Amino acid sequence: MAVTDIATRTYNHNFRLDPIVRSLLDTDFYKLLMLQMIWREHSSVNATFSLINRSTSVRLADVIEEDELRAHLDHARSLRFTKKELIWLAGNSFYGKQQMFKPDFIEWLADFRLPEYDLRKADGQYELHFDGPWTHTSMWEIPALAIINEMRSRAALQNKDRFALDILYARAKAKLWEKVERLRAFPDLVISDFGTRRRHGFLWQRWCVEALKEGLGSRFIGTSNVLLAMDADLEAIGTNAHELPMVEAALSTSDAELAGAPYRVLEKWRQHYGGNLLIALPDAFGTTAFLRNAPEWLADWTGFRPDSAPPIEAGEQIIRWWKEQGRDPTKKLLIFSDGLDIDRIEEVYHHFHGRVRMSFGWGTNLTNDFRGCEPDGEAGLEPISLVCKVTQANGRPAVKLSDNPAKATGNPDEIARYLRVFGTADRVLTPVEV
Amino acid sequence: MAVTDIATRTYNHNFRLDPIVRSLLDTDFYKLLMLQMIWREHSSVNATFSLINRSTSVRLADVIEEDELRAHLDHARSLRFTKKELIWLAGNSFYGKQQMFKPDFIEWLADFRLPEYDLRKADGQYELHFDGPWTHTSMWEIPALAIINEMRSRAALQNKDRFALDILYARAKAKLWEKVERLRAFPDLVISDFGTRRRHGFLWQRWCVEALKEGLGSRFIGTSNVLLAMDADLEAIGTNAHELPMVEAALSTSDAELAGAPYRVLEKWRQHYGGNLLIALPDAFGTTAFLRNAPEWLADWTGFRPDSAPPIEAGEQIIRWWKEQGRDPTKKLLIFSDGLDIDRIEEVYHHFHGRVRMSFGWGTNLTNDFRGCEPDGEAGLEPISLVCKVTQANGRPAVKLSDNPAKATGNPDEIARYLRVFGTADRVLTPVEV
Repeated sequence: MAVTDIATRTYNHNFRLDPIVRSLLDTDFYKLLMLQMIWREHSSVNATFSLINRSTSVRLADVIEEDELRAHLDHARSLRFTKKELIWLAGNSFYGKQQMFKPDFIEWLADFRLPEYDLRKADGQYELHFDGPWTHTSMWEIPALAIINEMRSRAALQNKDRFALDILYARAKAKLWEKVERLRAFPDLVISDFGTRRRHGFLWQRWCVEALKEGLGSRFIGTSNVLLAMDADLEAIGTNAHELPMVEAALSTSDAELAGAPYRVLEKWRQHYGGNLLIALPDAFGTTAFLRNAPEWLADWTGFRPDSAPPIEAGEQIIRWWKEQGRDPTKKLLIFSDGLDIDRIEEVYHHFHGRVRMSFGWGTNLTNDFRGCEPDGEAGLEPISLVCKVTQANGRPAVKLSDNPAKATGNPDEIARYLRVFGTADRVLTPVEV
Repeated sequence: MAVTDIATRTYNHNFRLDPIVRSLLDTDFYKLLMLQMIWREHSSVNATFSLINRSTSVRLADVIEEDELRAHLDHARSLRFTKKELIWLAGNSFYGKQQMFKPDFIEWLADFRLPEYDLRKADGQYELHFDGPWTHTSMWEIPALAIINEMRSRAALQNKDRFALDILYARAKAKLWEKVERLRAFPDLVISDFGTRRRHGFLWQRWCVEALKEGLGSRFIGTSNVLLAMDADLEAIGTNAHELPMVEAALSTSDAELAGAPYRVLEKWRQHYGGNLLIALPDAFGTTAFLRNAPEWLADWTGFRPDSAPPIEAGEQIIRWWKEQGRDPTKKLLIFSDGLDIDRIEEVYHHFHGRVRMSFGWGTNLTNDFRGCEPDGEAGLEPISLVCKVTQANGRPAVKLSDNPAKATGNPDEIARYLRVFGTADRVLTPVEV
């Protein structure tokens, strides 16, 4: 007879919530790197983060129970960094560097908790805003997205019987492993997991990370998820994100100051971090504009993470810029992380192979690809384009232009002003898949 | 933190044997039907069953530890039918009939245990013989085969890490489900599990049976495995096997008596069983010879189970015979069970659809198909052609000719004599895959 642990089973009878986010480390590493800088440089800045569902046809409020969503968000607010987590953050080396997080910052983290949230339903969607000190609201981005995405998966699976779930996950595992075997063919491929925010679920992300570790060995360089990095003894991967230039831009008081914002942020960054963390994200207000006015010292940085532009065009543009600055691109690094799947990874890899160092940050199609896996159709399991973006800082609206107008965020007047300041060169409208 | 049942884990620390066969019901249903008849008709007959590995390139004694094999066989010998099992055998209806097993037989079963075995190594193979009353040695066939096949699987997997096993079973599940989806396309398909003897392992067979039940609903009519039938509330499926005509033939004292043996067995069978159990297995000494001399009353039986002949040829031959006897084949049943996989099932189904009733007994390729599933190659997981056949009865050699000379068993002189008596018409040498 099968042995059942009675205490576990009895606990399971009665549980009211199976929490999605159970640790403040269940977030992306770059949030912590950025947070340390924000805490030192901008501790008095107020910033609002807001949920934006670009997949408007998916009516999240019809799929996800409001009470349950509140319960998950409340549970996340009850979390603190545990002693073990803080000791690990303080004692571990990141990107080869000891004490990446300074003792005073660690001490401050010990009292950290996620701030309040503001949740409403409107037109079948959730309006979810986090308002407060930037040092706190920034930390909501990843758990909020992970919670909503996993609640959506759970809703899609709630009426499946055990057997259908068994087939679903067997197929998803087999499917991911086919991808791993394709990636194995590239002896010098360098790839990491960037899939926390869009994951199907925490346990599934963990399995995916284990699969890459097992299948790719040292070619799998780590995960953006800090908790998984700690638990699986992997490198935590990530540098910085759009919120830095967006807030810097929002706080600018003139168009001239606005034009300099993307570079001021990078100056601050290099005061805090060095080496392989010197990765520039060029597309917040358009890559072409960014490179046109970029300071020469930026050419000494390790590399760029082109994001919203088509990867080959963006990579070529950056390589040209390095050459113009007299730098050797084969010594430089491009990190690709937007909408990657195996075909795209292969294409980009072959295109740039030998001409530049490359790394891939694999997100949604790593941790949330169930296409063709569901015996009774995929309804509700297809990933959606859900983001959580900074929308204002100290009362001033925040804007992201991006290289792809479909990914722009902000109010139309401000977008128009930003387009006047940064120009519209080379912006390419591309459907946003994930 | 994950909860571990400490008692279970402590037990697992120390276990010496994870028994493969844990119930005397973990056998094929036809064994019990035949046993009841053997017990009534032939209780004094002595018969030897012997292991025959037709896949001679697989050196079983190099793969399977002798001590461990003995431990599994000894464990099987320690088994008794439990009260629950006997009550179920007595109280359940089989093929729509109550009291298929009579009270005196059930009472006899209560004291049943598997008899001694004789195990030796020779030339990299195991010589494994079961000698004693036919009523006892017959019951070794299925557990012996299941034990050796699962020990071989375990040996192939013993150095795999947990992750490789995870991928292996995920792929195997996905693969089986593809087959289920193909079978679903046939609205009137009738199929059952015949995969006990060649299974990868007990737990895997159980999963396969659950998959067919889930995926095919009532088109999956049951399993030959009595234990799984009981546990999953499925019909137990099966009728009779070659050992009946083989022993009847071996006991014959003249060539004339030998020629009549296949029909004497069926006469006894119809005294014990009726209805859908009236299925004739025509190929023990060649289907052509069998039909040529078959009594007219056999045309009133429910159907035939052509076995070793190519299924379409054998089916056509039997349909011709029914028509010669003035019977309507569309009222008759053909059960196909030899070397089936999806392509073969589809081909046979389409060939005979509308012309005869059909049922498929799916064996090795249901419960032991891991081709393409093992990340590091299939070494040791490919199924082998292992059988356990009656080799003598009351000191007289037993012979099976079969429609396929590759499946013949017995000593050459006796095979030659049988070929003189039954003829050699229409015997087709076909490679034995599984």
